[in-house]
This record gives sequence, structure tokens and C-alpha cells, in this order.
Amino acid sequence: MRAVIYEGPGQVMIGEVDEPELFSPSDALVKIELAAICGSDLHVYHGAVPGVLPGMSLGHEFVGRVLETGPEVKRVKPGDRVVGSFHTACGECAACRKTRYFACTNGMVYGYGIAFGALGGAQAEKVRVPQADLSLRKIPDALPAEEAILAGDILSTAYGGVRPWLEPGMSVAVVGAGPVGLMAVEVARTLGAGSIYAVDFDAHRLGIAEKRGAIPLNPKERDPVSHLYRETDGFGADIVVEAVGGEGKALETAFKLAGPGGVVASLGVPTVETFTYPWLEAFTRGVRFHGSLANVPRWMDEVLALQQAGRISGSWIFSHRLTLDEAPHGYEMFDKRGAVKVALTPA
Amino acid sequence: MRAVIYEGPGQVMIGEVDEPELFSPSDALVKIELAAICGSDLHVYHGAVPGVLPGMSLGHEFVGRVLETGPEVKRVKPGDRVVGSFHTACGECAACRKTRYFACTNGMVYGYGIAFGALGGAQAEKVRVPQADLSLRKIPDALPAEEAILAGDILSTAYGGVRPWLEPGMSVAVVGAGPVGLMAVEVARTLGAGSIYAVDFDAHRLGIAEKRGAIPLNPKERDPVSHLYRETDGFGADIVVEAVGGEGKALETAFKLAGPGGVVASLGVPTVETFTYPWLEAFTRGVRFHGSLANVPRWMDEVLALQQAGRISGSWIFSHRLTLDEAPHGYEMFDKRGAVKVALTPA
Amino acid sequence: MRAVIYEGPGQVMIGEVDEPELFSPSDALVKIELAAICGSDLHVYHGAVPGVLPGMSLGHEFVGRVLETGPEVKRVKPGDRVVGSFHTACGECAACRKTRYFACTNGMVYGYGIAFGALGGAQAEKVRVPQADLSLRKIPDALPAEEAILAGDILSTAYGGVRPWLEPGMSVAVVGAGPVGLMAVEVARTLGAGSIYAVDFDAHRLGIAEKRGAIPLNPKERDPVSHLYRETDGFGADIVVEAVGGEGKALETAFKLAGPGGVVASLGVPTVETFTYPWLEAFTRGVRFHGSLANVPRWMDEVLALQQAGRISGSWIFSHRLTLDEAPHGYEMFDKRGAVKVALTPA
Amino acid sequence: MRAVIYEGPGQVMIGEVDEPELFSPSDALVKIELAAICGSDLHVYHGAVPGVLPGMSLGHEFVGRVLETGPEVKRVKPGDRVVGSFHTACGECAACRKTRYFACTNGMVYGYGIAFGALGGAQAEKVRVPQADLSLRKIPDALPAEEAILAGDILSTAYGGVRPWLEPGMSVAVVGAGPVGLMAVEVARTLGAGSIYAVDFDAHRLGIAEKRGAIPLNPKERDPVSHLYRETDGFGADIVVEAVGGEGKALETAFKLAGPGGVVASLGVPTVETFTYPWLEAFTRGVRFHGSLANVPRWMDEVLALQQAGRISGSWIFSHRLTLDEAPHGYEMFDKRGAVKVALTPA
Repeated sequence: MRAVIYEGPGQVMIGEVDEPELFSPSDALVKIELAAICGSDLHVYHGAVPGVLPGMSLGHEFVGRVLETGPEVKRVKPGDRVVGSFHTACGECAACRKTRYFACTNGMVYGYGIAFGALGGAQAEKVRVPQADLSLRKIPDALPAEEAILAGDILSTAYGGVRPWLEPGMSVAVVGAGPVGLMAVEVARTLGAGSIYAVDFDAHRLGIAEKRGAIPLNPKERDPVSHLYRETDGFGADIVVEAVGGEGKALETAFKLAGPGGVVASLGVPTVETFTYPWLEAFTRGVRFHGSLANVPRWMDEVLALQQAGRISGSWIFSHRLTLDEAPHGYEMFDKRGAVKVALTPA
Repeated sequence: MRAVIYEGPGQVMIGEVDEPELFSPSDALVKIELAAICGSDLHVYHGAVPGVLPGMSLGHEFVGRVLETGPEVKRVKPGDRVVGSFHTACGECAACRKTRYFACTNGMVYGYGIAFGALGGAQAEKVRVPQADLSLRKIPDALPAEEAILAGDILSTAYGGVRPWLEPGMSVAVVGAGPVGLMAVEVARTLGAGSIYAVDFDAHRLGIAEKRGAIPLNPKERDPVSHLYRETDGFGADIVVEAVGGEGKALETAFKLAGPGGVVASLGVPTVETFTYPWLEAFTRGVRFHGSLANVPRWMDEVLALQQAGRISGSWIFSHRLTLDEAPHGYEMFDKRGAVKVALTPA
Repeated sequence: MRAVIYEGPGQVMIGEVDEPELFSPSDALVKIELAAICGSDLHVYHGAVPGVLPGMSLGHEFVGRVLETGPEVKRVKPGDRVVGSFHTACGECAACRKTRYFACTNGMVYGYGIAFGALGGAQAEKVRVPQADLSLRKIPDALPAEEAILAGDILSTAYGGVRPWLEPGMSVAVVGAGPVGLMAVEVARTLGAGSIYAVDFDAHRLGIAEKRGAIPLNPKERDPVSHLYRETDGFGADIVVEAVGGEGKALETAFKLAGPGGVVASLGVPTVETFTYPWLEAFTRGVRFHGSLANVPRWMDEVLALQQAGRISGSWIFSHRLTLDEAPHGYEMFDKRGAVKVALTPA
Repeated sequence: MRAVIYEGPGQVMIGEVDEPELFSPSDALVKIELAAICGSDLHVYHGAVPGVLPGMSLGHEFVGRVLETGPEVKRVKPGDRVVGSFHTACGECAACRKTRYFACTNGMVYGYGIAFGALGGAQAEKVRVPQADLSLRKIPDALPAEEAILAGDILSTAYGGVRPWLEPGMSVAVVGAGPVGLMAVEVARTLGAGSIYAVDFDAHRLGIAEKRGAIPLNPKERDPVSHLYRETDGFGADIVVEAVGGEGKALETAFKLAGPGGVVASLGVPTVETFTYPWLEAFTRGVRFHGSLANVPRWMDEVLALQQAGRISGSWIFSHRLTLDEAPHGYEMFDKRGAVKVALTPA
């Protein structure tokens, strides 16, 4: 079958890979209806994820239809339309039993190399889904694929950065208006945040954030920190979502934006081992810090319920819809910030 | 000064009453900018509230400007624009210390007779506000009076019936689409409820509920219970807000709508001492019941923050805007369901 | 194999029943190490549970060792020592997915007749366990059987009546000092309640409650309501656990004991359809009511963790240890209040 | 009157200072019954707190009796026995309104120099208490002064490091068995933690921790990290309380002890500006971090309720009881770890 294949830094192509098959009794096989390119696929694209070797297939965001299930699978059956969580979870280990699925000792990520379970990618015609009961969710036909697919990754990730800390009316600042940051704006508005601020250097993305209800703060135009404090009567933000990661530059801004007793929820994936924590300052102001891999299976049901009720919607994030064969072009555009989010259809 | 005065069952008039004065060091004096007629004023209008005697002034919903404050008042000062909670709270008794302000042992209700502190009504030119620090909230000039006034009564009441139980995506059924019920629809939508259902016999009010995001269920057209169970795959509602009160007829429907582990939050004011609790059925399905006077000072700050951020709005509820002198006509229309909500301006 | 068998009102005997076998792929077979007689077995004993027919085996509290498991069972394996929840839960229905296991649409109760799934009783040599993954919990050999067995029923039931509402330091009143009520005293103390009150007419049971940290209130000696209000400076109890059920007499006391904003958590099983809810009084004081079947699988892990850490202990509740063959005598004693709690060993 | 006075690094003496007087209408004057020396007083003693000048009085832990109150004080009156929070809070600023009292913009600390409001110390015969309504709590005569005084500082500080994150049965590790760490052990046990671990190099203090219910881990004897993981089946601790502060060495251990999704609650006061946050590792395991000044007025009521109900007790922490005149000797002993906690009586 055809799949997006990693060739080397900066190079992906469409090629043939072996058809996936059921391997364990808790597996399912899914025929892909829609896949998408995620910001974290770019790390792979740049050759920055160690265990991804040339020839491996990519992608971890997908909606599709179940083709076949192992004998232990209870919650989905062949013919069901489903969305996949970008990471799998077994439901049985100590972490899963405490609903901390992101730390599942048997968890894997699709198309992310050896270190994450050597699972085949979802930017393909089919994908094998381990631990299908927790890793998939049934979705109705009426829910557009471009909406549902977000519940399996960036929307649920953003959700986990806002929902646990939010009391209605709280002010929320989002640092970084990329796909995850924009989803965070959407989540904050949906759940009853008060003022929402978005910080980014990119005027276009900031324009989208504004359309979704955020007050745009472009450091090129004004100092986000002093502006936010002025707007909040000197208090600062109750919740700051950091959606950049990387080397931690955005974290510095995030800590400054957080008011007394505020939370800095870091969703961006770090590319460095450490950062310099502003201990004394954060201690004095009682700022909490939470940075983690997304706990997607924990939040998917709530996100899907909100999507189905029409309360939340993120599919406006897709700037480009390509066929699977056009994926290499999609990666290139996305990498050069010429696309906000790219959908891929295998058909 | 002029005020709305109770004359006897079915009779209110505009008359002269004594100017209010500061009485205790924690009092404030407020010049009324906007007052409103509440559903519970109709109980007075019908002569059903024992301690209201002819000659007493009425009304407990108001926005205004502080004229004068006692020496102990810290949070507002003359010139501040404010909204009042319909009931006052001292902040010092055991109940207040636990933020259960509705049970304040020193609490009073404006214009509600001897049993509630014999306070002057707010449908007047001025009103005396006891325990001003907790009973008032400062509001900016930019917030329309017809919006802010709701934070002091029906919107915060509805908020207290939804907010404590809601997890995003939950289904909410509202029984009774009067002013409080419609506010409950608004709150549920704002805070991220999933499907919202409104049950009422009045097609007009149900039409408003639908416009605010609810699925209308008119018992004249279809059985609300069987319809809701069909829509929720046989599960029932996670939260049922009962916004009728009276003799408890709506409670029967409310209990039937609640799914396993659901909450029946009763906001309607009872006019009878007891009702027949469906114990065995509720036990089997684990339904919780919560009925209480609104805890307005607890929720006002959150509601005002949401209003100021433009997340929630209830001022569309006002169907009529009258002068204070036209209040008798307003009561008559409201009583005959010819008005959904009536605003009064003293000017 | 031998089992306790219902013969008719007031009559149980030891007899032979068929050996249980695996029936569904999610079943397990358990060899009983310890069973116990529960207060709700007395309803059966009195012939008050409609679907229990002569010849059926009884009992729903047990600790044992897994003999055999169906192919879908993941969490336990032959040889594991386990405690069973008194009711089973599938984990897959809409109620289970919301962790409201007590409302599982596939749930059953051991030895409780046709209406509860016609499951064999646990007062026997072996028992068949449906949906074993959720219905059983592994326990270490070091945990005494008389301790662990409580996590499957009365201790977890009591836990569910206190844990969801308790903030440390709150006052808790327990109405009814039977086995469940005594467990509620234990839970309240373990989780940091402030003052704990126990109300009962039985001086002996009240003595046990006192030994476990409660202040005893015997209506024969003093009025519990006025005494509790005096002790709480007129405030009343924050949480009232009603552990009697039946015709609802104890509920009247429970509502009187609850302070403003308090919770009445009703754990007792009703034997009548309805009770007269004190609506106006509860409305004025904002009392919440929660009565439901216990959600044992939700709380078992926490209870077992506390037992293993030595924080909580309930095994002192057992007044009698009998062999399975002596069970008829055990029922008789328990029914006549000559035993507080009876353990049965099949050996 | 007599007071403990700072003379210079390593030097305190007893001297005469001016009698305090009411200064603002929200002040109270308190006659000291008992004061205590706190670990953070040692920073002053070492000359490490910039704004403390020679001649200033010291101490911020006290129990006493109200002598006089300003006209705005409502909650206490002359003659009341009270405990003081180590920091004051106004109740009116934006932070206080959100119950984040530690960030009060008008807050002060007794005897902690110019940077903290230049308030007189409490290791004296009398003390002036600003914003008395929030800064003091009435206590009954029956509560020993050595118990109550802890609610104003170290016990409530420890409480704030455990209570917000604890679900019953969770494992808690305490790094640092000084006074605050020992209080954290006490709080964890009282509120229903599962296993509790205490890490320290000091065998004596570890012995106390063990007596209060903790499993002692002395790095001199065994590696605390590998031992704790072995004991928790490889999971790690749910909550890690860091009670050392300083240069952050203990934080390194704390992060290693925290299991997936765990919380590192840092109570120790930092003496450096920053520390190196193990971002990638904490991200992968989803560890949260919370370090802040204690929010004493938020937790005092709960702590006092638990003390009065006899659920929690910390007065065993006092190793020495001295007169005020012997304070210099007390500082010396405490500094050299010859005392665990020192009480001072002015009489």
C-alpha cells in the first residue's frame, strides 16, 4: 500500500510499504479516510527524532474505518468510523489505571520511530492500531473528518492545557499561535474563559486567533507583558498556555505573563534537556508549572461531545487539503509556514 | 421619593416613600439607574408573601450609583457604579465564612417584607444597601445596565444551578423556560455543556431558548422524557435544572429526565412545604438533588467577568423597558405572561 | 459444592449446588477464602427480595483465589488472591464509561435473585465472577481477608457517602451505627473530618462508634438534633450520612442535622417507593441530597490503598467467625442483632 | 517593652523597644502568650535578609490575647485569644479577592525587615497586627498555645503543600525532615495519604518522622530514589513535598521521586534566583511543579478545625521551651540543630 515515507532530513516521498496486519489480540486495522501533518512531524522531517530511520512511514493523526479487530477488542467493530489518539495506551498499567495515559508503560506513537514503538505511520492507506479499545473512539458519520481528527491530537492536547485549571471568567494567555496555540484559544473560549490573549510574531496567525476570540499581542508592535498587565489591572494572567516548546524561549515570556497563583501550562515539545526556572520570582508569586505530553485518551470523549454538540470547532485550522500523493509538497509548505495545517486524503 | 408600592393582592402603585438614610456603619446608599421586575415579585403581587404589608416598597434587582457609604464600607465609594445582589450577606457569620452566603444569618432581601429584614425595595429612586461590601459589586460604565443587573439575580441564580456540577460536554436539560430557565440555557452553553434541552409549554419562550442554543421540547407536541432519552442513547441528562418551583409538578419531570448519577438542581422557589421524593427510583439510578436559594455573592464575580469579556449575555431577556411610573402596567403584563422581563428606569 | 441456600422466609440452610463454570469470555472462577453476611442479605432472609426463589444460593461479600479465567480477562490470572465487588460492572456501557458503575446496564449482584442477574451466591465454596476485570481486585497475601472483604462492599459503600463531599475539618453526622454506619465513622476519621457524631438507639453499637472516634448521640438519652446544634455553635453538620434506609424514618433526622449548604448522603437501602422531602426547609437552608446504590468499583482502589498503608481498618467490625456450615446460625444471630458482623469460612 | 532584637549576623539580644500602638483602623494590638523561632528566622539571624537592620525586633509566629482593636476590625475583640498568620493579608486587593492571600499587594511579615512592611516582631511582649480581620483567628482556651501557634505558620504551610493535590491513598514523599517537612508528614497522614516517605540525612529527625507514620529514607544508608521506586512497584510518588529550599539541591531529588503525573510541591524558601529545571524528563513524565510562599490565611480555618477535633497535632515538634529572655540561647541551639523547634514565653 502507499504511505508517506521518510527518506532523510528534509526529504519525504510516497512509496510502497507492506500492508499492516493484526499482530496482537487487542489490535485493530483501520482504513484511513483522512490523515494530517502535525507540527511534531516536522521534527521527524528535519531528522531530529533519533529512532526514525529512512524507509519508515510517518504520521499520527487519522480518521478512518475499522477493517478488522482482534478477539480482545470490545469497543469498536469492523465498519465503525473512528478517530485515533496520536498515542496508544493499554489501560492496564499503573499509570493508565490512574488515567495518566500519557505515561502508559506500553504506549506508542504512530510513525515516530523505534523509540516510540516502531509503529507504522497513519499517512498511509491503512494503519495498525494497538490497544484499540483505548486508542480509538467511534464517531458518527455526521462529524466531518477534518473536525474529528483534531480530537485525536492537537485539540485534545490544547484541551489538557486549559481544562484542568480553568474556572469560568479566568484570563488566559496563549504564547504561540501555531495549530496547538490556536486550538487553545478555541478551548478557552468554549469553556468560559474571560479575556483571552494570543502572543505571536506572525501577523497572519494572530489574525486567526483574533477571529476566534483572542486579543492579539504581537511583540513586534507592543510589549505583550506590559500590555497584558495593563489590561488586567496589574494582575497578570490566571492561566498561560505555552504552545511553542523548542529551546524554551517562549517559556520566559510565559512566566512573566502569569499572575499570582497562576498556572503556566506548557504544551510545546522541548528540544532541549533543561531550562532555567525563575524560582525566586515564581516562588514569590506562587506560579505553578505543568509541562507534559498530552493525555489524549483522557480528554477525547469530552472533546468529541463538544464537537458533536457544535460547541467547539477546530476544522477552520486546515489551510490545505491534499491527496496523499501530494504529501511531500504539503510537508514543504508546512515547514516553510506557507500552510497552517495540511489534511491528506489517501483516495 | 417615588417607589413602587404594594397596595394589596394584584395591586401595585407609584407613591411617595421616605428617602432612605444610612443606618448602620456598613451601609451604602445607592441612586437607582435601572431596576427590574422578577418572577418572585409576582408572589408579592399576588399577596402570597406573608410579611409584605400594604404600603411597602418592592423590588430587589438593581443597578445604580453609590451616593454615600458608612465608615466601615471598604470596597465601594461614592460615585461608583454598582450592581446589587438581590440578597445581602454579612461575610462574618459561620455560613458566610464558608461562602454559603445564601444562609447568612444576617441576610435580607430588598422589598420582600418583614420576614426578610423589612428592607426598602429597589424599584425606587434610591435604596439603602446593608453590608455593602458583600452586597454590591463595582461595574464599569461600559457594561450596559440591562446586562449587569442580571448578575445580581437571575443570571447568577441560574449559574449556581449549572456551574458546580458541569463537566464540559455534559448534557443539560432545563425544565421551565421562564427568565431563570432561559438564563440557565445561556450559562450551560457558555460553560461548554454538550446538548442542552429546554422543556416548556410556551412556544414563544421555547423559541427564545432555541435561539440561545437549546433543543426545544414542548410537551404539547412530544413527550420530553422519551424524546430526551432517544436523543441521549437511552442515558438521560447529566444535569437537570428545574426552574419552575411552585407546587413541584416540574420536579416530577426533572427526576425522570436525570440519567444515572445525574443531578437535579432545583432553582424554582417552592410554594409548598414538601414534595414526594421518588426515593427508590432515584436510589437505583443514583440521582442527586440540590435545591436552594441562590448563592448570588458567591457567583457574581465570575458572572461579571464573563459578561465583561463578552462570553455571556442575558440582556436579550428584556422584552419591555418602562419608566418607574409605568411599573403598575409592567407588573400586569408580566403577570399575564405578556412580557418576558421588564426593566424600569426611575429617571 | 456446598453453599448457603435460601429455603423460604427466615430459613437458610447449607446444601449442595452445581459447581459454577466459566460462561462468558470475561468470566473468572474464584475459590472462596472468606465470605460474609451483609445487612442486605437479611432482606433476602426475610423473603423481601422478590426475585430470590427457594433453592438459590446467597451472599455477595467475598475474598478468594482465582481458579480459572476466560480469554478476555486481563487484570487477574489463576492463582491471584482477590476481593470481589458486591456488584459487577461491564466497563463498556455509557454509565460505566462515565465511571458510574452502580448504574451499569449489565451489572449484577451475587446471590440476589433473578432481578439482579440470577448470579450464584458467594457464601459457597466457589463463585462465578462475570466481567472479572472490573468486578475483582488483586490483593496481597499480607492483607487479612477480614479486612479486604470490606473493600468489596460496606467500607467502599461508606466511603462513597463521605469522600465526594468532605473537605478536611468538616463535621460529619452518621445516622445509624450498623456496619455501614460504623464504616462511615471510620472513613470520616481517616480522611480528616472534624467532629464526627453517631446517632443510634443501640448503646453497644454506639460504644463501638465512640471507640472509633465518634461522639455518641443516643436519642434515648438526649435529643441528637439539639445536641449537635449546640456543639456546632448552631451551625449543624456539614455532611450527614444516613445508613439506615428502610422506610425513611432516619432520613427525617438526617435532614434536621444538616446545616446550611450541607449534604445528606443516604446509603441505606429503601424498602419503600417514596419519602416526603422537606422541600421548603431544605431549600431555605440549601441542603443537598444524594442517595444511591454504592459505586464500589469506583472507590475500591482508594480503599485498598488505604487499607494496605494501614490508614484505615474495618475488620474490628466482625463479631463472629463461623464455618460455612454454621451459616444458618450466623443469619439467626445477625437478624436478632446478636452479631455485629459475621464472617464465614468454607474450609 | 522587651523584644528579641537583631544586632548583626549571628547576634540577637533581648532589649527594650517602643510599645506598639494602633496605627490604622484595621489594626489590632495583641499581648503575646507564646512566640516561636522559625527556620526562616535563621536567614535573618545569618544576616541574609537584606532589609533587616540592627535594632529591629524579630519573630512571626505567635499566640496571644487581643488588647485593643481599631474601629474597622469586626472578627476579633479585646479579650479574644488568637493565633496570628505569619503574613498579613488585606482581603481587598485582586489577589486576596481570589483567595491568593500570599500575593496580597498589601501583605507584610512580622519582624522581617523593610522589604516586608517593617512590622515589629512577635518575639516580644506585644505585637501590632495590621488587617486584623484576616491576619488573626480566634482560638478557644482549650487549645494549647504550642498547638495553635503552628496553624499560623509551619503547619498551614505544610498543609498547602499536600491538601490541594491529595487524593486518598496517594503516596507522598517528603524531602527534608525539618519542622515544615515533619508537619507535611503529619498532614499527609491526617488527610488519608497512602504510604508516606521521609528523606533526610539526620537520623534523629528521621526517627521523629517514622514515629509520625513515615517510612524513613536516609541517603547515608540507601538510595532514596531506587528504594521508593521499588516500594511503589516502579511508579514513583504521587506527591513530593520539598521542604528544604536553599540552593535547590533537594529539588533534584524531589523531581526524581515524582512518578508520572505527579506533583512536586516546593515549600522551602529559595536562597538563589533560579534552578535548572529537568524539562525533557519532567515533560515525558508529566510532572507538575508548584513552589510558593504559604497561603496561610486560606488554610488556617481547616487546620484549626482539625486541631480542635484532635485529628491533627504538631506540638510534639517543640523540643525546647524557653523564656523570652533566653531567646539568644534558643537561636544558637536552633542554628546548630541542637533544637528541633523552640517556643518562647514572654512572662
